[in-house]
Amino acid sequence: VRFEVTILGSSSATPVFNRNPSAQLLNVNDKYYLIDCGEGTQLQLLRYGLKAQRIDHILISHLHGDHYLGLVGLLSSLHLNGRTRPMYLYGPKELKEIIEVQFLYSQTDLRFPLVFVETDSERPGVIFSNEDLVAETFPLEHRIPCTGFRFTQQPRLRRILKAEAEAAGIPAEVFPVLKRGLDFTTATGRIYRSADFTVDPERPRSYAYCSDTLDTRSYMAWIRGADTLYHEATFLHDMLPRALETFHTTARQAGEIAQEAGAGHLLIGHFSARYRELKPLLDECKSVFEKTQLAVEGTTFTL
Amino acid sequence: VRFEVTILGSSSATPVFNRNPSAQLLNVNDKYYLIDCGEGTQLQLLRYGLKAQRIDHILISHLHGDHYLGLVGLLSSLHLNGRTRPMYLYGPKELKEIIEVQFLYSQTDLRFPLVFVETDSERPGVIFSNEDLVAETFPLEHRIPCTGFRFTQQPRLRRILKAEAEAAGIPAEVFPVLKRGLDFTTATGRIYRSADFTVDPERPRSYAYCSDTLDTRSYMAWIRGADTLYHEATFLHDMLPRALETFHTTARQAGEIAQEAGAGHLLIGHFSARYRELKPLLDECKSVFEKTQLAVEGTTFTL
Repeated sequence: VRFEVTILGSSSATPVFNRNPSAQLLNVNDKYYLIDCGEGTQLQLLRYGLKAQRIDHILISHLHGDHYLGLVGLLSSLHLNGRTRPMYLYGPKELKEIIEVQFLYSQTDLRFPLVFVETDSERPGVIFSNEDLVAETFPLEHRIPCTGFRFTQQPRLRRILKAEAEAAGIPAEVFPVLKRGLDFTTATGRIYRSADFTVDPERPRSYAYCSDTLDTRSYMAWIRGADTLYHEATFLHDMLPRALETFHTTARQAGEIAQEAGAGHLLIGHFSARYRELKPLLDECKSVFEKTQLAVEGTTFTL
Repeated sequence: VRFEVTILGSSSATPVFNRNPSAQLLNVNDKYYLIDCGEGTQLQLLRYGLKAQRIDHILISHLHGDHYLGLVGLLSSLHLNGRTRPMYLYGPKELKEIIEVQFLYSQTDLRFPLVFVETDSERPGVIFSNEDLVAETFPLEHRIPCTGFRFTQQPRLRRILKAEAEAAGIPAEVFPVLKRGLDFTTATGRIYRSADFTVDPERPRSYAYCSDTLDTRSYMAWIRGADTLYHEATFLHDMLPRALETFHTTARQAGEIAQEAGAGHLLIGHFSARYRELKPLLDECKSVFEKTQLAVEGTTFTL
């Protein structure tokens, strides 16, 4: 069962050499979900050999350019490369107009259905649910409407104790019943109890993504207990006034948030162009929350 | 006197690894002019150490995404990095709406004046003229309105024959008069003739840029005699039907156009993603027009 994220961009508003604007590719059982889509995202996918056509869902946190300017280029390329499968796009309602005006003037008539789902920056809620995943949005506190996302694996089936089940002569056809936690009664009245032949499944894991936000902790309920939390850490804490002014978070604050949320691991990104070296940001964060890693381009994290 | 172009992108509609969408940086006496601005252009400028703040004019040939999707990101970064100097932007009139809607929803109030000058895809004409350069647009034949550009150096002053002038005892203060082709009469009535002490200046050089077009030769008058011609060469000639269908040019046609135009040199670009190796395109073109080079990323051509 694959549940991992590859970082495509780690820079904040202005890119620097070797740091691209925000984008992450979530891989859940080899289905791809794109989280934010800064300029050059399609080029980053090419660089890391990740097939853009496998993406069926794109989630945009907010309409600052460094989080969505790669979207029209990516959709155009999918179109030109023959896509017919629907694409689901989630984002602020104005995103629809931004895309439509560009396809209008380039006279692009997409060959695939682009299903736009408006996110609500005021109210949290589920935005989609499929066999692998439940995705939710929740409000963040930024200069313009902005949402975070939380991805939670669907609950899995109980695991069969195969040796015990075979020793008891249970036919394999009965396994799916027991895996669902149900007992099975044979035609002769014999009962196989699920509790005797199965154990609890792995707990569904979750990944929370906080793109751009002031450290208000108002979104704590939505990130609590995430196995992995991605949180922006644009500045070092000595730049706190600047962070407050621009509605961003410092590395120390990101660590405190992960601590308070009880997250398993913390990934930090969205680094200001002023930092050539990222180690000071990592160190500051780790001084509060040890299990922190830098979400830099080309790294893949198992969630 | 510097007159050169650096290639930032050589790919057509869909980028491939190591080939970016269209953008070229024209350097005229260390002032920068950006010609087209595909996605990732600001990252390419960073890659090659070219200062984006030196750009004062941006020209967009047409509204297919691979020619302009880097524009909003570039303008945003200039804004965030403190630009106050005006930026002149030339392109189809719909470009204004595309930019405005994006700055509206990102709540970006640019710190610098963005002066938009609409190009006319039906009628050729001068779009700007300054101390270094005259720039003209001319219609190309593409699926959507599209213009080419021609950049011509301003005529230069005549060159002083310094040794002869000094031998004749002409004061240096008189040189500027003679350089302008005017004769100078001293207070004592002595006449220094410009023709005796100067020679013709270097001929103003010119660069013509044909982004995306069907090979109609309808634009021949506007590229004739260009010292350097950039022309798209999306396909090999065996793909002619595809070139006609998509309103593009083949490498052989690009060579024929350069030949017919009497161009000094030809640069070809806008290569289809189907070609991993570009040598066949170069070879096909050179079989018609020997002085051809590939306009690939990171190369600088003296014009």
